Amino acid sequence: MTGSRVSRVEVPPDSLFGPENMPYGVFAPPDGVFRVGCRLGDMVLDLAALLDDPVFARSEMNAFLAQGSRRWREVREKLRALADTALPIDAVYPVSAVRMALPVRIGDYVDFYASIDHATNLGRLFRPDSEPLLPNWRHLPVGYHGRAGTVVVSDTPVIRPRGQRRTASGTTDFGPSERLDIEAELGFVVGTGSTLGTPVTVDEFAEHVFGVALVNDWSARDIQAWEYQPLGPFLGKSFATSISGWITPLAALTSARVPIPAQDPEPLPYLRGLDDFGLDIDLAVAWNGAVVTHPPYARMYWSPAQMLAHLTANGASVRPGDLYASGTISGPEPSQRGSFIELSWGGTEHIRVNDQTRTFLTDGDEVTITATAPGTEGRRIGLGEVAGRILCARDT
Amino acid sequence: MTGSRVSRVEVPPDSLFGPENMPYGVFAPPDGVFRVGCRLGDMVLDLAALLDDPVFARSEMNAFLAQGSRRWREVREKLRALADTALPIDAVYPVSAVRMALPVRIGDYVDFYASIDHATNLGRLFRPDSEPLLPNWRHLPVGYHGRAGTVVVSDTPVIRPRGQRRTASGTTDFGPSERLDIEAELGFVVGTGSTLGTPVTVDEFAEHVFGVALVNDWSARDIQAWEYQPLGPFLGKSFATSISGWITPLAALTSARVPIPAQDPEPLPYLRGLDDFGLDIDLAVAWNGAVVTHPPYARMYWSPAQMLAHLTANGASVRPGDLYASGTISGPEPSQRGSFIELSWGGTEHIRVNDQTRTFLTDGDEVTITATAPGTEGRRIGLGEVAGRILCARDT
Repeated sequence: MTGSRVSRVEVPPDSLFGPENMPYGVFAPPDGVFRVGCRLGDMVLDLAALLDDPVFARSEMNAFLAQGSRRWREVREKLRALADTALPIDAVYPVSAVRMALPVRIGDYVDFYASIDHATNLGRLFRPDSEPLLPNWRHLPVGYHGRAGTVVVSDTPVIRPRGQRRTASGTTDFGPSERLDIEAELGFVVGTGSTLGTPVTVDEFAEHVFGVALVNDWSARDIQAWEYQPLGPFLGKSFATSISGWITPLAALTSARVPIPAQDPEPLPYLRGLDDFGLDIDLAVAWNGAVVTHPPYARMYWSPAQMLAHLTANGASVRPGDLYASGTISGPEPSQRGSFIELSWGGTEHIRVNDQTRTFLTDGDEVTITATAPGTEGRRIGLGEVAGRILCARDT
Repeated sequence: MTGSRVSRVEVPPDSLFGPENMPYGVFAPPDGVFRVGCRLGDMVLDLAALLDDPVFARSEMNAFLAQGSRRWREVREKLRALADTALPIDAVYPVSAVRMALPVRIGDYVDFYASIDHATNLGRLFRPDSEPLLPNWRHLPVGYHGRAGTVVVSDTPVIRPRGQRRTASGTTDFGPSERLDIEAELGFVVGTGSTLGTPVTVDEFAEHVFGVALVNDWSARDIQAWEYQPLGPFLGKSFATSISGWITPLAALTSARVPIPAQDPEPLPYLRGLDDFGLDIDLAVAWNGAVVTHPPYARMYWSPAQMLAHLTANGASVRPGDLYASGTISGPEPSQRGSFIELSWGGTEHIRVNDQTRTFLTDGDEVTITATAPGTEGRRIGLGEVAGRILCARDT
């Protein structure tokens, strides 16, 4: 390591990214190539420069994740020690000066449906003539596979998708989605993979999952409503899923851990463990800068440990870099709904956005999801934000 | 290239793998590492040794696929010329002496539902009280994402999955699937990727798709029936999907091309093209060696070019190595049904297998799917087989 030394990184006392947070991401300095970094305050530490391990010189975190939970703890201890020391000037960059990339190469992407309030709201909206919660919902964490190849990092523009819809007159047409929506979710990034044929138990969650990211699972409701039976959502979701550039390690969320809400009926034994890993994370969704909802992660019915145990219960394996998301986070209050189809109740009620009103997304709109969680001594830590702006549909 | 020269590879006149076929795969010679090869008769040609391109020295075909359709044609011409010449002895191995690996690193795996007879049969079995074909089925190729990380190469054993089911008394339990099934399908391997936001049109199919593989989409019907609403199949499918080790290039299927059956109503313009790419491929499914059904690919309602156009119509991108499968191939006759749930009509009718009877799969059973298609001058070409044996469920 050459270069002059600076004094240690100054972290403002109210920073959401203090030394107890230190999320990881993949960044490129001005005129540099992508590599693994760590955020401290408003600075990014270049781990390829600071730590003697070539896994950090890569453009995705997969190799580091595959090193396993002992190594994750070791690196985190080193980084917390480094946060108190002077650092080489060529290993530290302002957050505002770097470009971020997708932090992991995602093998499989699974999306769950773990909020009882969201599932109930969508049941009412999509199937108004039947029980909103289907019979299986309280027995297992319902989920499905999404498209891994169209997961993009925060700030990637989202082109309004075109697709086939049922028209009011009962015919079909093809055109730009008229009901473009968001889903505010929490994503879980798998670090240690598993073997085909061997399930991961609830209590093995923290050995396999490295950390969390905020997720916006953009959704074209008109396309989804027409296509989704009987095999589930497909093109209504697969055009883009945005995730935050920063991944917060589970180790930073110790103070955020809470019990999950009571489950009735009691889940089958394969969905039970000593450690359910509820998380008290508060999200906020800003639409063109105006916060329109505050989804509370702590209210999620199914825990992330249960989701992983279910996902692998049939012997399916996970790989380093796999991503699974919670599904839309909605609380019981209208001000806690994590999608615009819920906030506008199927497009029938206007949502106030600054001095305008909205139901679904208009071209040019920008949505930014942020979140905070309890840290130690009354402080809070922040998750990396996930943002995206809607571009008009392409001509075909 | 060193080593003594042999006379050219002898291909028996009735071989299904003559010089007009020449499928690609990833193989390892005895005591050697995996690399890209090509099958000719009962021999495997080592392309890393025969052609001057390091892409063939890799353990997956992705880099070759990404070189694009002009390069695919060029390599195929070279191989057809080589088939007529003497070859170095250390570049040719008997098929029986090599191990095969998954030929591609699969980015995303999508499964369609393109057989009208299969969709009708499953609608009758899963939803006996309503119209078997849902309203969207004739308007778009229904599909969903499957698990890419659990796609395995032919001959990989399949462990019977455990999972949650609804019992006859209305409770739930967890245990080894009692309705383990197959789905005989044709898979399409993407070669040239596309750009996020830019759909692939029907007529661009052959520029993007490299070739075809046989697929067995193993299905646990009891798990699937309980979990699949409203987000589609998940654990009932994700424990394993087997594909053939040999990928037949589209260029070998020129004589197999046929029009697709009439579509009513006429599809929307984005699903129409000059070239619908129907394929006259006859499958045979052997259960412990006894052929129990002959699914005809030519009867598929939606063409593979329409599937790809639909999959990307919302701007979703494809990557080299992506796999999409047709869904179960069933013809109108009972002897043409491509799954055991159809052959046994939901487990109510016995299927004769040698001197035994079956409804669903028993531990130790082996299923082998083979297929042939028209070649030139009245000959036929073979697709690589996909086989798998059922191992008993693991203790948990």
